[in-house]
Amino acid sequence: MKRLGYLGPPGTFTEMAAVNYLEAKLDNSSRLEAYIDIERLIMAIADGEVPAGIVPIENSLEGSVNITLDYLAHKVNLKIQAEITLPIVHNLIVKPGVKLDEIEKVISHPQALAQCRDNIKKYLGDTEIVKVNSTAEAVNQLSSRNEAAIGSRLAARRNNLEISKAGFQDESRNWTRFVLLSRPGVNLEAGRARQALAASKTSIILAPVKNRPGILHELLEEFARKNINLTKIESRPTRKTLGDYLFFIDFEGDSQDREIKEILKNLRLKSSYFKVLGSYARLEFTSEELAVEYN
Amino acid sequence: MKRLGYLGPPGTFTEMAAVNYLEAKLDNSSRLEAYIDIERLIMAIADGEVPAGIVPIENSLEGSVNITLDYLAHKVNLKIQAEITLPIVHNLIVKPGVKLDEIEKVISHPQALAQCRDNIKKYLGDTEIVKVNSTAEAVNQLSSRNEAAIGSRLAARRNNLEISKAGFQDESRNWTRFVLLSRPGVNLEAGRARQALAASKTSIILAPVKNRPGILHELLEEFARKNINLTKIESRPTRKTLGDYLFFIDFEGDSQDREIKEILKNLRLKSSYFKVLGSYARLEFTSEELAVEYN
Repeated sequence: MKRLGYLGPPGTFTEMAAVNYLEAKLDNSSRLEAYIDIERLIMAIADGEVPAGIVPIENSLEGSVNITLDYLAHKVNLKIQAEITLPIVHNLIVKPGVKLDEIEKVISHPQALAQCRDNIKKYLGDTEIVKVNSTAEAVNQLSSRNEAAIGSRLAARRNNLEISKAGFQDESRNWTRFVLLSRPGVNLEAGRARQALAASKTSIILAPVKNRPGILHELLEEFARKNINLTKIESRPTRKTLGDYLFFIDFEGDSQDREIKEILKNLRLKSSYFKVLGSYARLEFTSEELAVEYN
Repeated sequence: MKRLGYLGPPGTFTEMAAVNYLEAKLDNSSRLEAYIDIERLIMAIADGEVPAGIVPIENSLEGSVNITLDYLAHKVNLKIQAEITLPIVHNLIVKPGVKLDEIEKVISHPQALAQCRDNIKKYLGDTEIVKVNSTAEAVNQLSSRNEAAIGSRLAARRNNLEISKAGFQDESRNWTRFVLLSRPGVNLEAGRARQALAASKTSIILAPVKNRPGILHELLEEFARKNINLTKIESRPTRKTLGDYLFFIDFEGDSQDREIKEILKNLRLKSSYFKVLGSYARLEFTSEELAVEYN
């Protein structure tokens, strides 16, 4: 039986990404395993303890998940095998029958609390805020009628709790990108799938040989000349010296395409550090498609 | 008496940035005011409740401080008046005389705990980890001989505690950039200073009129043509639609310089959203220069 790690505990949005990924792959034999934090999961994949795992990499409101980028850049040699994008819908979750004016305390992960800040104020006033390690943990520990948790529909259903307000986040558009990681050489994308999952996006990390005015412009010319669309760019400080930066670049295309191969070859020549994180398929789910969340 | 807000509570690295900034400015009359979180401080500056404030914007290990970037982009119209870069030195702090093998619990901010992960394991084994809202809070609440906190030397001294291990972070190079913010039109950089504080860096945010292959390359050509050095670039999703990105760009130069003015004019024409966060002086402190931390 195959195993797939994910950032737990059960009921997190990462579990929803994992479940929907397996569903899209028509895979009903893989067993999901929750890991307590991103670092441990990434190290478990690198050490071969679990063959693959899913972690968040970017949220539309919070930006990059720094710990994921840092581990991929500095600590391990793993490949991105697929990208899964989910809409993030936060719900105000209570014991059955609880009314808004009974609530004296709201429990959730700090990011979820931040994303619902205005609505908490609007509906619950100056209620007490309690921060815990995950939205799933918040929902699991909900124990009294004067508490509410903010979390996923999946977690609410598993705990037989009620959704007092669905879509409780301040911005209606909120999504997270997750990546499926494995050690190099593993091909997880073989086999059946509900839709063709061709590699359509590539992620690389590089440091220019020398930082000087115009260097990024020169690097990006490789992409512009071949009409390749960048989907993300981020400079992040290297772990060593003040002022030196790594670039994280995502672009459309497969590293096996001839044009992309040529771009990568040219970039490598201009880099003191160069790493292809992978070419992979993208799965984007809309709220309607998230069958698993609502069943 | 002038007032300067900072991300508190007292004893945070942001307070150290604020104290060292005032020292560099030969300003000993301004009163420091702690704010409980970044959002409240930024809103207090925008609302005129406090004339200026200092918040973290980037850490060398953790990357950008997303909440700061998001508020500057989307919620307020504030100017960066100065940048202060400090080395971050985490210390393992205990009650006087406590030995390592007495410690059963380590308390700190999640980022500090993450940055000391390997050393916690090395020196304290599988000790209990307790997360709180700031390193200063961790040090302030240290109450028993079997607890340790991770925090600044300033916080340890204020609480008459002992440093069991100085420089407890895993990576010796660790720095944070802070920014001094105020409403537009305020000129905080007038007056005396220990060193000339000329504006030497500019930060902008922009969204290209249309996302298409080569657009970023075209934008960066403006800088390359005039030999202007970029110090940071980051694409971040806009709050509205999937796939649309804002660019945060820092570069060397003052927006009042003729060449920079021309670059900004050209970029503005190619942008659907354009904001100059400010041109400002940079203060970089080394450990040796941080007189205030050690006095």
